[in-house]
Amino acid sequence: MTTRTPVKAKPLHATRVPLPDKLKNSDSELVHQEELRQDVGFGTRFTDPYSRLINKDGSFNINRVNESFWDRLNLYNRLITMNWVYFLGWILLFYLAENILFATIYVLAGAENLVGTNDAMFHGAFWKAFFFSAQTLTTVGYGHIVPNSFLTSAIAAFESMLGLLAFALSTGLLYGRFSRPVAHIRFSKQAVVAPYLDVNGWMFRIINERSNQLIDVQVEVSLSRLETKPDGTPYRRYYGLNLERTQVTFFPNNWTLVHPITSESPLYGCTAGDLSRSDAEFLILVRATDDTFAQVVHCRYSYRYDEIQWNRKFGIMTNENQAGNISVDLNKLDNTEPATLN
Amino acid sequence: MTTRTPVKAKPLHATRVPLPDKLKNSDSELVHQEELRQDVGFGTRFTDPYSRLINKDGSFNINRVNESFWDRLNLYNRLITMNWVYFLGWILLFYLAENILFATIYVLAGAENLVGTNDAMFHGAFWKAFFFSAQTLTTVGYGHIVPNSFLTSAIAAFESMLGLLAFALSTGLLYGRFSRPVAHIRFSKQAVVAPYLDVNGWMFRIINERSNQLIDVQVEVSLSRLETKPDGTPYRRYYGLNLERTQVTFFPNNWTLVHPITSESPLYGCTAGDLSRSDAEFLILVRATDDTFAQVVHCRYSYRYDEIQWNRKFGIMTNENQAGNISVDLNKLDNTEPATLN
Amino acid sequence: MTTRTPVKAKPLHATRVPLPDKLKNSDSELVHQEELRQDVGFGTRFTDPYSRLINKDGSFNINRVNESFWDRLNLYNRLITMNWVYFLGWILLFYLAENILFATIYVLAGAENLVGTNDAMFHGAFWKAFFFSAQTLTTVGYGHIVPNSFLTSAIAAFESMLGLLAFALSTGLLYGRFSRPVAHIRFSKQAVVAPYLDVNGWMFRIINERSNQLIDVQVEVSLSRLETKPDGTPYRRYYGLNLERTQVTFFPNNWTLVHPITSESPLYGCTAGDLSRSDAEFLILVRATDDTFAQVVHCRYSYRYDEIQWNRKFGIMTNENQAGNISVDLNKLDNTEPATLN
Amino acid sequence: MTTRTPVKAKPLHATRVPLPDKLKNSDSELVHQEELRQDVGFGTRFTDPYSRLINKDGSFNINRVNESFWDRLNLYNRLITMNWVYFLGWILLFYLAENILFATIYVLAGAENLVGTNDAMFHGAFWKAFFFSAQTLTTVGYGHIVPNSFLTSAIAAFESMLGLLAFALSTGLLYGRFSRPVAHIRFSKQAVVAPYLDVNGWMFRIINERSNQLIDVQVEVSLSRLETKPDGTPYRRYYGLNLERTQVTFFPNNWTLVHPITSESPLYGCTAGDLSRSDAEFLILVRATDDTFAQVVHCRYSYRYDEIQWNRKFGIMTNENQAGNISVDLNKLDNTEPATLN
Repeated sequence: MTTRTPVKAKPLHATRVPLPDKLKNSDSELVHQEELRQDVGFGTRFTDPYSRLINKDGSFNINRVNESFWDRLNLYNRLITMNWVYFLGWILLFYLAENILFATIYVLAGAENLVGTNDAMFHGAFWKAFFFSAQTLTTVGYGHIVPNSFLTSAIAAFESMLGLLAFALSTGLLYGRFSRPVAHIRFSKQAVVAPYLDVNGWMFRIINERSNQLIDVQVEVSLSRLETKPDGTPYRRYYGLNLERTQVTFFPNNWTLVHPITSESPLYGCTAGDLSRSDAEFLILVRATDDTFAQVVHCRYSYRYDEIQWNRKFGIMTNENQAGNISVDLNKLDNTEPATLN
Repeated sequence: MTTRTPVKAKPLHATRVPLPDKLKNSDSELVHQEELRQDVGFGTRFTDPYSRLINKDGSFNINRVNESFWDRLNLYNRLITMNWVYFLGWILLFYLAENILFATIYVLAGAENLVGTNDAMFHGAFWKAFFFSAQTLTTVGYGHIVPNSFLTSAIAAFESMLGLLAFALSTGLLYGRFSRPVAHIRFSKQAVVAPYLDVNGWMFRIINERSNQLIDVQVEVSLSRLETKPDGTPYRRYYGLNLERTQVTFFPNNWTLVHPITSESPLYGCTAGDLSRSDAEFLILVRATDDTFAQVVHCRYSYRYDEIQWNRKFGIMTNENQAGNISVDLNKLDNTEPATLN
Repeated sequence: MTTRTPVKAKPLHATRVPLPDKLKNSDSELVHQEELRQDVGFGTRFTDPYSRLINKDGSFNINRVNESFWDRLNLYNRLITMNWVYFLGWILLFYLAENILFATIYVLAGAENLVGTNDAMFHGAFWKAFFFSAQTLTTVGYGHIVPNSFLTSAIAAFESMLGLLAFALSTGLLYGRFSRPVAHIRFSKQAVVAPYLDVNGWMFRIINERSNQLIDVQVEVSLSRLETKPDGTPYRRYYGLNLERTQVTFFPNNWTLVHPITSESPLYGCTAGDLSRSDAEFLILVRATDDTFAQVVHCRYSYRYDEIQWNRKFGIMTNENQAGNISVDLNKLDNTEPATLN
Repeated sequence: MTTRTPVKAKPLHATRVPLPDKLKNSDSELVHQEELRQDVGFGTRFTDPYSRLINKDGSFNINRVNESFWDRLNLYNRLITMNWVYFLGWILLFYLAENILFATIYVLAGAENLVGTNDAMFHGAFWKAFFFSAQTLTTVGYGHIVPNSFLTSAIAAFESMLGLLAFALSTGLLYGRFSRPVAHIRFSKQAVVAPYLDVNGWMFRIINERSNQLIDVQVEVSLSRLETKPDGTPYRRYYGLNLERTQVTFFPNNWTLVHPITSESPLYGCTAGDLSRSDAEFLILVRATDDTFAQVVHCRYSYRYDEIQWNRKFGIMTNENQAGNISVDLNKLDNTEPATLN
């Protein structure tokens, strides 16, 4: 591991915020200081400079050991969130497996107990049983193959019930997949440090990828970086970053989020090198309300120190044509242009 | 484009509100001013006087360029929100298309491999295959046409599974359509500027179109208009408007929302001509809770300068009959009568 | 109508609360007073002393005139909220009607085009068509009656698709009915005015009727009564009532809600006769979170002046047996016993 | 019952919090004091020292008497929350019962009215009717047994409709079971009293058992214990406990919740014996947002006085391997090690 020189902790007062909901534990200043320390939930022990806290897909960079089988499987979540191609593949596979299983059972129960009008076409008892199983499982039941014994009748009665349940399950899964609220928010690939009014600002840009509307969009940004305790041990520290604007009611086009680097900012006076040395990562949480289903959706993202462009600002994404119509070009989200910092 | 004379920006102090949740960035007054500027999310670049920000159906007046195919299609949203007639039409079309596709496949696999008790009635191999497909897809499977080869049996087994999935999908879509929380709030066609107590007020009126109850109804109104920066460039500015009352617990009859035009109002001293010249638009967001499903629903609307009647007030919508019963007449929502402004 | 003497309006200051979210419209005291007036959404025009605002089932006592057909029908809401017996009756009726309709169509298309193995048993072409329709609609398709012409095959193909859609609809409706979040909160039949600490209190009592848990239960109580304007015209006025406790985290047994009648209360100094003369009604809204589905549920109720017992207090509902187990007896919810007011 | 010596009530001022939402009822100090008393909803009458308020599975320890049959049954809740094995068992049982019922009806209607191609195989009229019923209920309808009279046709038409409804119900139940939002949060088996900064703290530890993410996790802890009124009668009292941190945005690994035992804490100066004598129980409510479905989930738990380890602290659960990857070991959740209190 290379040696890192974490940023020396700034005095706390700059980010000290009043605690409106609880009493100050006034007889211990240490307890009070600890209550003021911001933590987004990762804890202070992540001092490895090579990995990030939040991956680009929004997942967390933490392995879990000794999870139970069912918790690890997390079947419903997996079936709901997996790719459509995989999902349909699993359905097909499951359908085939179920039919092979029941075909085997019918063969064991005596294939002669399934009577068909034209048994020759199936090229063998197994396939007759297989197609009979498929016709039973889907309840299509043409009747050109029928169970011809008590046992096969009973198996078929059970299988058709199972088929209905499996279908019920698929119905639920398909609905669950479709109706799951997901925020399709695209983040600019890079954040920038650009001039902002008479100071500078740390900025990134988001846009709604879909044409369904999001309302009441809220953004929360935290800075995570390594600092050293008075005794010299490195620890990870978190700062909530003030934003020029944390919420918009409507979100019809792009939105550039700006953290003004004023003297109160933990970024005040920082250079690109400082961010790199302290393994800085900007953690972002977006909350919004999907207008179609009136459900709250979430979106996580992070920018690491090496995804920040200094001395560049974002270009304009919107156009106004001759007729006065505004259009926003999603492909221009990542466009930046040079800018001189204040 | 005609020349417009945007309203000169009023000094900020009137609408300056304290920021309870964040620190004042005290070392840059410009940053502080910018934090105070209200923006509902459209940005300042909409300076075209001919188009509105929010269309009458609540959608936004912004085109999107370079959206990806799937994001543009937005299939689920589209199927959920389209008109019932179109929806049922698409279902029928899809059913026909699926049957035509599979009929073709069966014919290619050899129509003689589908055996019927009375093949003559179908007037050709294609239609026999078509009706066999329909009976397979819906799993009705009468059995008077049956697959009579390995290949057609396999295709039919696949088709019946596909039929079940398609049906599962339809179940989900139908439920999604029915259970989607929608606020059926009707807005008065016109807003009015009418006398209000000892001042005047900008008012509009809403009513719940449906008999299911809405509770905890909240209304937020913003004024959007063109103003000029000190350097003379026009830009769009937003003001949150104070309302006499922003929330009601119950919403059993009509509700007239009033913005009192006191000296703190950005409308103070404005004339109809001022509103027109500054391309003023009033943006409205209603949030409510649907009582049946306890879901939060939303509703957007806007009034442009040319949808405001001056010197008129709203008429009474409720009647009390002999027996003392109150009734509210939805047809009277838009009724106004002359009134002299204070 | 009998003559009523509405209570003279108390001076406003007692219930004047600070408005934290908006600026005082300081240049018009009338506007400011109006902003402070509480209104739960019914408005001031309900001056009829014979009817109540909220019916005992939580619905509002307002007729709606000129509602559109679909809004009045409000089909989904109606099907979701109606009694189970009615609901199943409608399903059965719809099934019969659909079969009668299609039977008629098949007969018109030529009943001889449906071929059965034993046509005699149906006692006529209509019933053969009827049962064929039922077997098609449910996709059971035994195959002992089959379509035997192009036309009847096409009708059957359409009907089986319709059957699947109808079934999809039923699936959605059944799920919607079952999963609808409903708060089964039982209110004591009567409210009481009883001694409370060193003053008196207006009290009512609620309990969760079901064994599924409600958490974060919040209660809001408003008093509605007739008062007279300075010019003598009666109008309906609303007061939010302070409660000893407005929220509990858990709701495992009964909860007595108390409005302490201190000098700030609009009930201070009121007699039973005052409440009656001013047509007083106590409007109650309960919000809670259903623990099973984590959904917010609502419940409305009201007590009119004639549903209040004076000089009585609620009896104890809980028992502790020998083994120390606590039990709560739902039948004792309405029990009251005499009590002398302070 | 053994004699218990409840803790003497501490003076109220330490936990008195400002009431922001309502006026102080200033003319009765008793009313004001009562408004300040914290109560999580159990009331003050639970003075039995042998039972706990919240069971380990999160249910409440209160029996309910005279609940109505349907409220007690609470069918949907029960079917949704029961074990999968029981659920599938009930489905199978219901399927068998339905078939036995209809088989009996068909036999009563004349078993000769069901015609099969091979009646011998069923070993009797009942089983022929049973399998016909199964083929009708599941709508598989092979057609090798068919109704051969008006009456049996009518019964079959009814049964197939019933089958579809039962299947619709199962679809809803399966979806409801799968999509029910549940927080799988594991609590450490024991709470500890350990040194915390320069004071001591009461601590417990939680972790998300599943790999789906929870965000905006909020924790609320109340202390419940027996105290004595001035007249010597014991009553149960509740205190909201201040926590070092009540909310985290992300919850990727374990979280140790700390109540600092400063002089304001109701635990200040308490010994293990005090907690035992006053039958102390710590009530915990966790609220979080499930990231997959963006639904709010809840979790209840409690620690009784005999589930608290004194002079021990929690061990570390996370490891950082050579490559710098962090992993968290779920099996170490309950690990504690000795620690000397301040």
